[in-house]
Amino acid sequence: MRHALALAERAAAEGEVPVGAVIVRDGAILGEGANSPRRLSDPTAHAEMLAIRAAAERIGGDRLQDCELWVTLEPCAMCAGAIALARIARVYYGAPDPKGGGVEHGARVFAQPTCHHRPEVYAGIGEAEAGALLREFFQARR
Amino acid sequence: MRHALALAERAAAEGEVPVGAVIVRDGAILGEGANSPRRLSDPTAHAEMLAIRAAAERIGGDRLQDCELWVTLEPCAMCAGAIALARIARVYYGAPDPKGGGVEHGARVFAQPTCHHRPEVYAGIGEAEAGALLREFFQARR
Repeated sequence: MRHALALAERAAAEGEVPVGAVIVRDGAILGEGANSPRRLSDPTAHAEMLAIRAAAERIGGDRLQDCELWVTLEPCAMCAGAIALARIARVYYGAPDPKGGGVEHGARVFAQPTCHHRPEVYAGIGEAEAGALLREFFQARR
Repeated sequence: MRHALALAERAAAEGEVPVGAVIVRDGAILGEGANSPRRLSDPTAHAEMLAIRAAAERIGGDRLQDCELWVTLEPCAMCAGAIALARIARVYYGAPDPKGGGVEHGARVFAQPTCHHRPEVYAGIGEAEAGALLREFFQARR
């Protein structure tokens, strides 16, 4: 999560909402992402999506079965859907996102009967740091 | 939808679940996609995602406000989330997807209070052709 928080800081430095994500397997980083929809002109370029795509490209397949995702903010519905499609085994996330989250809020993607893969989910990992980064970012923009 | 169906056929020819998608603005195609998660080693490479990313890259921004998405199958939760993030104005889709859909089934992404943008949605456009393509594909693999 330390590395994901550093990626979130990198996103903030680029003027993007500070969220960072890392895909890990057997203790090794397979993919990482810093939230970049504006910089990349890509509405799908959330940190989780970039990390998932990088890891899948690296392993040469579309399934990340034995992988963990570490992300500083609760994934949105898009990212939760991608996590299920990629068959990620475990998700560790930092701050909850009552306004945009899709795991414990809103669409609750993994709780739907139509969800074909449910990762183990651990919330609140590094929540204080992740939340502070987001608050600072939005306060500076008000 | 004719063009989206042709893209779905192209996906099937590549051994991918036959789904195709097109982003249109003012009658012009801005982006298109044929479902390709296996070919691209990318679990996020659904037809809609590829079309959205292509259109956003083309217009040089992460918002597709005045755009329509035409897709042969009901979008899943991931794609519905991306549609909301991209601020797509209207979604036209073919076959419903009771097992994997995220619009009228499962996560019902656009119906959530946390969804920040709700496109107009028109279902059942080209449903017969889109459904036939999917049935043929899965029957051939049984």
